[in-house]
Amino acid sequence: MENFTVYNPTKLHFGVGVISNIHQSLKKYGKKALIIYGKGSVKKYGYLDALKKQLNLSKTEYVEYGGIKPNPVIDDVRKAVEVAKNEKIDFIIAIGGGSVIDSAKMINLSYANNIDAWDIMTYREIPKKRVPLITVLTIAATGSEMNGAAVLQNPKTMQKIGYASELNYPDESFLDPSLTLTVPKDQTINGIVDLIAHSLEAFFAYGDAPLSDRFIAQVIIEAMDFAEPLLNNLKNITLRERMMWTATVALNGTLYAGKASSGDWGVHALGHTISMLYDTPHGQTLSIMYPAWLKHFKSKIPERIAKLGKLITANKNTNEDQTIEIIENFFKKIGAPTRLQDINLTENHKKQILELLIKNKVSGMNFSLDEKDYEKILNFAMQ
Amino acid sequence: MENFTVYNPTKLHFGVGVISNIHQSLKKYGKKALIIYGKGSVKKYGYLDALKKQLNLSKTEYVEYGGIKPNPVIDDVRKAVEVAKNEKIDFIIAIGGGSVIDSAKMINLSYANNIDAWDIMTYREIPKKRVPLITVLTIAATGSEMNGAAVLQNPKTMQKIGYASELNYPDESFLDPSLTLTVPKDQTINGIVDLIAHSLEAFFAYGDAPLSDRFIAQVIIEAMDFAEPLLNNLKNITLRERMMWTATVALNGTLYAGKASSGDWGVHALGHTISMLYDTPHGQTLSIMYPAWLKHFKSKIPERIAKLGKLITANKNTNEDQTIEIIENFFKKIGAPTRLQDINLTENHKKQILELLIKNKVSGMNFSLDEKDYEKILNFAMQ
Repeated sequence: MENFTVYNPTKLHFGVGVISNIHQSLKKYGKKALIIYGKGSVKKYGYLDALKKQLNLSKTEYVEYGGIKPNPVIDDVRKAVEVAKNEKIDFIIAIGGGSVIDSAKMINLSYANNIDAWDIMTYREIPKKRVPLITVLTIAATGSEMNGAAVLQNPKTMQKIGYASELNYPDESFLDPSLTLTVPKDQTINGIVDLIAHSLEAFFAYGDAPLSDRFIAQVIIEAMDFAEPLLNNLKNITLRERMMWTATVALNGTLYAGKASSGDWGVHALGHTISMLYDTPHGQTLSIMYPAWLKHFKSKIPERIAKLGKLITANKNTNEDQTIEIIENFFKKIGAPTRLQDINLTENHKKQILELLIKNKVSGMNFSLDEKDYEKILNFAMQ
Repeated sequence: MENFTVYNPTKLHFGVGVISNIHQSLKKYGKKALIIYGKGSVKKYGYLDALKKQLNLSKTEYVEYGGIKPNPVIDDVRKAVEVAKNEKIDFIIAIGGGSVIDSAKMINLSYANNIDAWDIMTYREIPKKRVPLITVLTIAATGSEMNGAAVLQNPKTMQKIGYASELNYPDESFLDPSLTLTVPKDQTINGIVDLIAHSLEAFFAYGDAPLSDRFIAQVIIEAMDFAEPLLNNLKNITLRERMMWTATVALNGTLYAGKASSGDWGVHALGHTISMLYDTPHGQTLSIMYPAWLKHFKSKIPERIAKLGKLITANKNTNEDQTIEIIENFFKKIGAPTRLQDINLTENHKKQILELLIKNKVSGMNFSLDEKDYEKILNFAMQ
């Protein structure tokens, strides 16, 4: 096992109805909140109103910034920081999915330290402070509600990058599975792919950590168990509960004990490049690129890939080919794309992707990637 | 799933050598520490000296209270509180196993709130404050290093009881597996039994939580995987690492998501009664009482018990009898007692145990126990 530190200070409240308890927590965080939300579903389904009711109950003043995009951009973060400064807010409440929470984290650090958010994300400036951050999750997928990570894109520099800091852990997160009953099928599929990809990034982190590997396999098995029933019955609260918690566990640190603190994230980086170019939903980029990455690395780390399959199948004879088949077939079965063609990308797009990968020197933390790797992986993604 | 809250503020540092980093953390906790330790092994093996070196490096003053017993008693807690008061200490460092850390937790609450520790444990007084608590673990078993629980016995009232509070989470815990290389075989066996029993208490908590159940089974499988190799090679650091982390996970909240926040703890309560009477090591009471409890509850909750076996074996056909056999045979295989006779207790002792169980109205949180249950369970424990 690698030496590691476990630290996750987020207090997470889970269960149907927890949204009604938010007002009890708010007083200690200050007088004035900035509410961050997305493109409208929290308005459409009444979740934003329900949150405002909680703020009224605790007599918390608030201002709001809506319109965060599904692939969130730095410009929205900067605009929201201006609102925060003008209104001298005390704390931030994010209501939405990962893109909203990620944006709120960087709004927080930029506002609290008076530094541009992109300078923080590119490590040109080091933030030292934060204001309290509360999250209300409405889409299960990214795990941002209980970790220190954020991903944003900058259309000017053509980068989509991640940033992690202990300052980014939400103080409290409210996970009310009933708020996810309205998540449409395609976004539910993307969420399932995302949580499996997070588990895989942890599996391919540096370090030998038997219990974490076992847990990783169980997260994948659990997802494989609830996915089809849920996709056939999107209003089933029990299945929504299972998905919501599993997505949190996939990226709240539970799967990293004994491994290098970062996962591999090479596949995420490859996927981010596609999202950057074509605004492709994050989950779709992962269900295409993970099988391709596995096929490319199969000859280099056959035993590692086979170990995953052995744990998933509880069968010592499962090999690397079967492991990749299990992952890819599952993505296909739930209707996730597994080839670039499935999202209407052609050879020309592939060239564009390759160029941007080369320009941004995209790589993984544990398994490095170079130009030759990009090409081979993209070939697998189009085969 | 049941509604639940996840909150574990302990910062845990794991790995060979982390003991040398303690001095970096100490400054922020104050000028003067109270060191709590046990009956001598931390002195014998130089761990206490290594800790004092860290205190010297950070120029932290300290006083000490040693002699905490393996089944820790309230008297030692009271005496240590006097030392804390006289010396006006700022924070507490516990170095040892679960009994030392549990004692330190109650010393902390008693000292910080100026309330007798037993009044806290019996809920006659509610503590509101704490001083910082640092732990240095030298025996893997109880999980106390990353939870809010403490167990103490009071020989005057003939009770051995547990107490849990958010105030009890250590601020920082240092888990250096190299400090566990000197744990003797019998204590290592007891630790393995204890961590499996903790997983089982979580499994039998109220509530249907599929991912937590999967994780519980994996903790048991992992223990079954490292136990024999470790017991045959007590100086193997890789196996010690696996045991140390697995014991922490078994009781740091990871296994409780979606369940009632308390496990069942009926078997622990039965075991505590035996420890109270005969000073029997905690682990030995569990390897005897868990199979007996399972046999008694087999007819009442066959499916629940069978589910555990199905998850452990990854075989849908495993039934409740086979499940109990798996647990009991494992305890036997690693040399843990599974009958009262194995620790030289006779029919007369059984009567004494029964009397004390009745007097203290011992029960579980999820599965209640009465006089008839005690008798039947004790019969299984002697069969």
